Amino acid sequence: MKMWDGRFIKGCDRLMEEFNNSLSFDKALIEQDIAGSIAWAHALQRIKVLSVKESKAIAAGLGRILKDYRDGKVLFQSSDEDIHMAVERLLTQKIGTAAQKLHTGRSRNDQVVTDFRLYIKKALAGITGRLTALQKVLLRRAEADAGIIIAGYTHLQQAQPILLAHYWLSFFFLLEREKERCSQAIACADMLPLGSGALAGSGFTVDRAKIAAELGFSKISENSIDGVAARDFVSQTLALCSSIGISVSRYAEDLIIWSSKEFSFIELDDAWSTGSSMMPQKKNPDSLELIRGKAGRFIGNYTRFAATLKGVGLTYYKDLQEDKEPLFDSLSQIDLVLAVLTEVIKSLSVNKEAVRNDLDSFLWATDVADYLTRKGLPFRAAHKVVGKIVGHCIAHNVTLDSLSVPTFQTFSDLFAPDVKKLFSWDTAIQRRAVLGGTSPDNVKRQIRAAEKIVKA
Amino acid sequence: MKMWDGRFIKGCDRLMEEFNNSLSFDKALIEQDIAGSIAWAHALQRIKVLSVKESKAIAAGLGRILKDYRDGKVLFQSSDEDIHMAVERLLTQKIGTAAQKLHTGRSRNDQVVTDFRLYIKKALAGITGRLTALQKVLLRRAEADAGIIIAGYTHLQQAQPILLAHYWLSFFFLLEREKERCSQAIACADMLPLGSGALAGSGFTVDRAKIAAELGFSKISENSIDGVAARDFVSQTLALCSSIGISVSRYAEDLIIWSSKEFSFIELDDAWSTGSSMMPQKKNPDSLELIRGKAGRFIGNYTRFAATLKGVGLTYYKDLQEDKEPLFDSLSQIDLVLAVLTEVIKSLSVNKEAVRNDLDSFLWATDVADYLTRKGLPFRAAHKVVGKIVGHCIAHNVTLDSLSVPTFQTFSDLFAPDVKKLFSWDTAIQRRAVLGGTSPDNVKRQIRAAEKIVKA
Amino acid sequence: MKMWDGRFIKGCDRLMEEFNNSLSFDKALIEQDIAGSIAWAHALQRIKVLSVKESKAIAAGLGRILKDYRDGKVLFQSSDEDIHMAVERLLTQKIGTAAQKLHTGRSRNDQVVTDFRLYIKKALAGITGRLTALQKVLLRRAEADAGIIIAGYTHLQQAQPILLAHYWLSFFFLLEREKERCSQAIACADMLPLGSGALAGSGFTVDRAKIAAELGFSKISENSIDGVAARDFVSQTLALCSSIGISVSRYAEDLIIWSSKEFSFIELDDAWSTGSSMMPQKKNPDSLELIRGKAGRFIGNYTRFAATLKGVGLTYYKDLQEDKEPLFDSLSQIDLVLAVLTEVIKSLSVNKEAVRNDLDSFLWATDVADYLTRKGLPFRAAHKVVGKIVGHCIAHNVTLDSLSVPTFQTFSDLFAPDVKKLFSWDTAIQRRAVLGGTSPDNVKRQIRAAEKIVKA
Amino acid sequence: MKMWDGRFIKGCDRLMEEFNNSLSFDKALIEQDIAGSIAWAHALQRIKVLSVKESKAIAAGLGRILKDYRDGKVLFQSSDEDIHMAVERLLTQKIGTAAQKLHTGRSRNDQVVTDFRLYIKKALAGITGRLTALQKVLLRRAEADAGIIIAGYTHLQQAQPILLAHYWLSFFFLLEREKERCSQAIACADMLPLGSGALAGSGFTVDRAKIAAELGFSKISENSIDGVAARDFVSQTLALCSSIGISVSRYAEDLIIWSSKEFSFIELDDAWSTGSSMMPQKKNPDSLELIRGKAGRFIGNYTRFAATLKGVGLTYYKDLQEDKEPLFDSLSQIDLVLAVLTEVIKSLSVNKEAVRNDLDSFLWATDVADYLTRKGLPFRAAHKVVGKIVGHCIAHNVTLDSLSVPTFQTFSDLFAPDVKKLFSWDTAIQRRAVLGGTSPDNVKRQIRAAEKIVKA
Repeated sequence: MKMWDGRFIKGCDRLMEEFNNSLSFDKALIEQDIAGSIAWAHALQRIKVLSVKESKAIAAGLGRILKDYRDGKVLFQSSDEDIHMAVERLLTQKIGTAAQKLHTGRSRNDQVVTDFRLYIKKALAGITGRLTALQKVLLRRAEADAGIIIAGYTHLQQAQPILLAHYWLSFFFLLEREKERCSQAIACADMLPLGSGALAGSGFTVDRAKIAAELGFSKISENSIDGVAARDFVSQTLALCSSIGISVSRYAEDLIIWSSKEFSFIELDDAWSTGSSMMPQKKNPDSLELIRGKAGRFIGNYTRFAATLKGVGLTYYKDLQEDKEPLFDSLSQIDLVLAVLTEVIKSLSVNKEAVRNDLDSFLWATDVADYLTRKGLPFRAAHKVVGKIVGHCIAHNVTLDSLSVPTFQTFSDLFAPDVKKLFSWDTAIQRRAVLGGTSPDNVKRQIRAAEKIVKA
Repeated sequence: MKMWDGRFIKGCDRLMEEFNNSLSFDKALIEQDIAGSIAWAHALQRIKVLSVKESKAIAAGLGRILKDYRDGKVLFQSSDEDIHMAVERLLTQKIGTAAQKLHTGRSRNDQVVTDFRLYIKKALAGITGRLTALQKVLLRRAEADAGIIIAGYTHLQQAQPILLAHYWLSFFFLLEREKERCSQAIACADMLPLGSGALAGSGFTVDRAKIAAELGFSKISENSIDGVAARDFVSQTLALCSSIGISVSRYAEDLIIWSSKEFSFIELDDAWSTGSSMMPQKKNPDSLELIRGKAGRFIGNYTRFAATLKGVGLTYYKDLQEDKEPLFDSLSQIDLVLAVLTEVIKSLSVNKEAVRNDLDSFLWATDVADYLTRKGLPFRAAHKVVGKIVGHCIAHNVTLDSLSVPTFQTFSDLFAPDVKKLFSWDTAIQRRAVLGGTSPDNVKRQIRAAEKIVKA
Repeated sequence: MKMWDGRFIKGCDRLMEEFNNSLSFDKALIEQDIAGSIAWAHALQRIKVLSVKESKAIAAGLGRILKDYRDGKVLFQSSDEDIHMAVERLLTQKIGTAAQKLHTGRSRNDQVVTDFRLYIKKALAGITGRLTALQKVLLRRAEADAGIIIAGYTHLQQAQPILLAHYWLSFFFLLEREKERCSQAIACADMLPLGSGALAGSGFTVDRAKIAAELGFSKISENSIDGVAARDFVSQTLALCSSIGISVSRYAEDLIIWSSKEFSFIELDDAWSTGSSMMPQKKNPDSLELIRGKAGRFIGNYTRFAATLKGVGLTYYKDLQEDKEPLFDSLSQIDLVLAVLTEVIKSLSVNKEAVRNDLDSFLWATDVADYLTRKGLPFRAAHKVVGKIVGHCIAHNVTLDSLSVPTFQTFSDLFAPDVKKLFSWDTAIQRRAVLGGTSPDNVKRQIRAAEKIVKA
Repeated sequence: MKMWDGRFIKGCDRLMEEFNNSLSFDKALIEQDIAGSIAWAHALQRIKVLSVKESKAIAAGLGRILKDYRDGKVLFQSSDEDIHMAVERLLTQKIGTAAQKLHTGRSRNDQVVTDFRLYIKKALAGITGRLTALQKVLLRRAEADAGIIIAGYTHLQQAQPILLAHYWLSFFFLLEREKERCSQAIACADMLPLGSGALAGSGFTVDRAKIAAELGFSKISENSIDGVAARDFVSQTLALCSSIGISVSRYAEDLIIWSSKEFSFIELDDAWSTGSSMMPQKKNPDSLELIRGKAGRFIGNYTRFAATLKGVGLTYYKDLQEDKEPLFDSLSQIDLVLAVLTEVIKSLSVNKEAVRNDLDSFLWATDVADYLTRKGLPFRAAHKVVGKIVGHCIAHNVTLDSLSVPTFQTFSDLFAPDVKKLFSWDTAIQRRAVLGGTSPDNVKRQIRAAEKIVKA
């Protein structure tokens, strides 16, 4: 028995019911649906469509359904079309006729989108917390790993030495922008559509400002069609999850490579690794691989809904029912990804010796070019000279710092004995004292800035 | 207790177990996992790694697990890492030590991909059946709707008259190519990887040809790395589902438009429509809207896995565990979409009167241009003349067929009284007698061709 | 001759040069590259790496290159690897040695991302303007089309009457959120990376705050790795374009349907339509179809770069060179889409008569249910009663408003003669007086709000 | 002046012309458009719509246009709407009135899709050649690198030793399946639509079999609506390019990692590497990075068109004009990617010493477990024992092969002195003698199979 089949002669085919049914996933909205319905009952009571008694009965009945749900009682029937109809059926069972009045002036169109926005706001508050937790771990690592100089890479080729703390902080600041996007997605979701009815506005002149206040919305949709039809808040949230997923995948890639025997820069804690069913020696950074792999999932969830939404006319088509599964999936998975990554980074150990031993003398090459530049050689010429020196080192299989001053001088007259002073990792680091550079002072400055951010 | 943690000092974190766990979705592979393991036991027995007795015990034990599963018994524990480990645990409980020998010479790497390929082959056979069923309904409609002339559209503007049967058959032939792609995806999946071990080939020289024969594979992977690492069969299957999903979405779009009051060409059966919670008059083609909307889902599932797979090195990384959810989802959803669409099309009714009344006189415009062309006017000039006539009709709000012969002649001397013979829908249809055209004879020819296809 | 090949023995293969070359697309950055280089020269001069004379020569030389470019002179050679190298080569030709000093302390890594951020900021300012222009047209239409009552649709089935102005305004408010996202994307791009060097920070302690001020950046990257590696501003901009593209595609879909002969609600101006090469009568809403179709392009450009970026480790890999083409394409195409759509909507004509004649009596069905609800019948029961009445009307092929009061009373005792007062389009509209509803007063309120927005 | 504007009062807006114009990209179809038009002229001549003289004039005129084009003459005007109209204009200039007759019975709808299918068939033949060329290089490497034993990886952790030849061959066999998909995409494109007219079939009963023969199509579309509307051949080709792009990206990832100083397994030839503008020592595997990054491009091009095509009704909408750019891009870029990768792999050098020195004793761990299994210990127990031994080695920082027999025996009684025989790379390799395994004999078998394939 459907709530809407007055005009139908024949019932729905069983296969159609299965196809159309959304309860299997939209039951996740039960808390929001109940909150929204209580607010709606209050609104109807304020305009006397419901008596105070009816309104109280509805609120109490809904409260009991929520309690049953939280107590783990089986509430749903396969014949329930969706969470809204399920809750209405349960309410009718509990309080009788008054329940039949609850849907006055409301449509599932404005009801579901209200629930959905409430859900997203709550979930994104959680994601914000996860991002901050990961930032804190990165900050703690930056402090703990102070003094570790590591090769900085471009193209997976050693480029210039950096402080490992500088690396962790680069992730910190990226995450700060993810948090920014998180706030933006929350702001987009934070608009009350309830009262929009099916599309034209409710036929009952409820006070929407009071509903918004009760449900914690800071904005009210200005236009009922927009209130019901818009799904930009869904795609913005999916884009956010995709952005976070991609950002963390990049650091995961590095950490996987760093975990290889050949790099040996870090070792994951046993608690975040797994073994092989066949090869007894294996310890695999599965946690990081899953984190990297799931970036595809977040991208795909975005694409999925974007392609669904494209070209869907106004006001509401059932195509839009496809909005929930990708969003629920992205929100819960990004939550898991962030929780795991936080623990992985917190618990991994850095192999200081391996990191130090791996530093290659060519990491000083830019410094040698800069040296010549300071002595007056145009940078392009300096770059070329050092390129030749590097070629010489490779050909003779010697390190850059092992060359004698006279050897340097065969490449340029500008070399003087002080060239040998370049070949210290500490001074190489200190030279990057520009704002944002990897010098110890600068990294300390970043740490202070980061501390302010996570305390805010 | 993990099967692989001999070298580990510390156990997995509970959150890591949850993150890493794939049982919630890979349990779908239970039948294939058991079939694969029985074949593997036979292979080990043939090379005397297992005794006949052990092999029989394994096969019998696995058979009982399968029976338990089919009987709906709860088999799995939250501590089971994946379906393979769950089955091995259950087998150990049932038959003891022999179970511990089953994984000899095998890795989960070759095991899971064997299961997965078996699963896909079976699922795609089902999809092929669904496609054929839909083709049959289209063929039946083409026969039943014989004689109905309908406006053919480009740009949603009336273009030329066609037989409705011709429209249904266009869908038939498109689906035939989807079936072709289905066969191709099956052929790609149809390669035995078992025996590839973790990556280098099993350390035990099993007879892989016999395994393939037992499991129904027609090809054997030539290279163990490729056997374990390749996931091209997954993306090919996802692309197939995406292709089918897009193809049906296009016809769904038309049928949704045709269901509007303004077109009124068709009416969906009540069994495949739904109503509104607020508006009592509504009868909505939700089934078709969901079918259209789910095209985004199939595209997204493809993109999701493609993005995951991109850049994942050899041989196996845990990223690849993300291959199953999108595939299971696409396969089960496309199955549902095809099942529903078949019923929707079978049961819809065509409003012949509305279809006929909607035919606009401008549908004959090409015929008028062709008429002039046959009289010797170059087509470009003829097109321009008829354009002017159409402009005249619009300006005077008259139909093309209502113009008198003298009026026609004001636009071109080539018009003769026989121009009026053009204005019959039947002859307009019959003129498209070219192979593939919409003339009745041609449509009959198509029907005969289609009948052969579905009988094959 | 490459700028970087000092250490190389062999030159680049010609095919590699072609493959690696980015000039064909990154030449779009020429203005930003020159502005960035002038600011860099000033920075180097401030720390005495360049003399005042050299700095002035560089700025003047770059200014002349820009002038040449704007004058349409052919500047580039196929051997130029990218825009940066092309500009440096041209500068060397113009001013000699000083040009060779310009790249001191800078890397293409921080250079290109500075250019790119400048470019995006400028382009998005243009998009914001386009969005406002479209909003203004919608606002003007809302004012001009005042009083036109049109069927509001869900599922392409007539649902409830609305004011056409209400429909246009729903688009207005959606665009306002797109503008919000535009500001957010600008804010993300608005961070100076220059001074980050290759990854570790420049070896020269330039004053980055002064560079930022000169180039108009309001933030400075805190961390040089993040400065060079981050591409979140690219994906955020691509997601923005995708969001706008999808939003406009939805309205395009409606307008295409409304342009059909069967709806005949609107007619596009000839200037924004095209004809057919074969069918002389055709006038097709191609502009709207392209707008709809291009939504796929924007989604695809997002997906493309997201998939590229996923899993790319730090700090810079050449994979990231793939960031520009999709972004340039999305920005220029969304600009075009908005420009065209603005003109299409501005110039289309509404067929008032067709719109009015199409209104179906069932559009009043919710009002009848609300009527019963106000008389005390619970809404669910009222919905069912009206469903039966609608069924009766369909069976007898009569309109809802044509039923007599006694006939209504056979369905419910609650009906009184005043039920007939419901059947006025004007009062149906006026009943939606809730905030955000379609009543004339409300729509006026929206127009006032909209006017404030576009004036701001 | 448009070819189709007879019925229009007003001309197209200039912006609309720009928006609608496709010449900038569809000019790539010029050769196919001319071939198609010549075949069409022949078809019209056969049914006497054109005289032999006219048909010959048309063919000759088109031939001259093609020659002009190949000679690099500027042919196009900005006012040309698309390639078809441009060619018709040029033909009219060359031969006069007869040119105006060419479009008789044809529509751009069937014309463009004919051109497009011809183009794809040709381009894919080229891609097939590229795939074969890469296979040949892999085969040659497999022969040249015979005898090199390298660590095989899973999770970027050393897993089991393999022959490097085995690795190259895994790529060979994957590419063989890409070739299979290539054939399938060609087969899908290989269907003549010409004669379908705008949608209903040409009004002139041309002999389509003869057209197909002339143009080299092996199938003819059975249904004119399908002929004009279907774009499944486009998405199948885009999916193919995406598949190839992803496949090669995975090997590129490995080779990038292998190029790092820390792995040092391979070195790219200078000709396929680039340097840094700032760091004189850098030699970066940019070619491989671009190859990896472009996988996102191919995925995005697929998604882009899939999203565009989704929900586009029949028969033709201008949305479909968006089919060409992504396809042209994917085809040309995949061509380039394959060409470059072939050269990169051909010219890279393997650092045999580094590869050998990197082999870790734990690569024998599975062999030790297999040893115990052969002695009768169930594999699960053997796996656990070896896990403990590995743990012991790590704790004591010794290699697996350095353990004494008595030490082994402290872990299991089953160990005998012959355990020491396991610790040879050659025998470890030889033990993988199962079909598809990495043993030298098996690899030779694969090479023979591969040779047959590339010779075929």
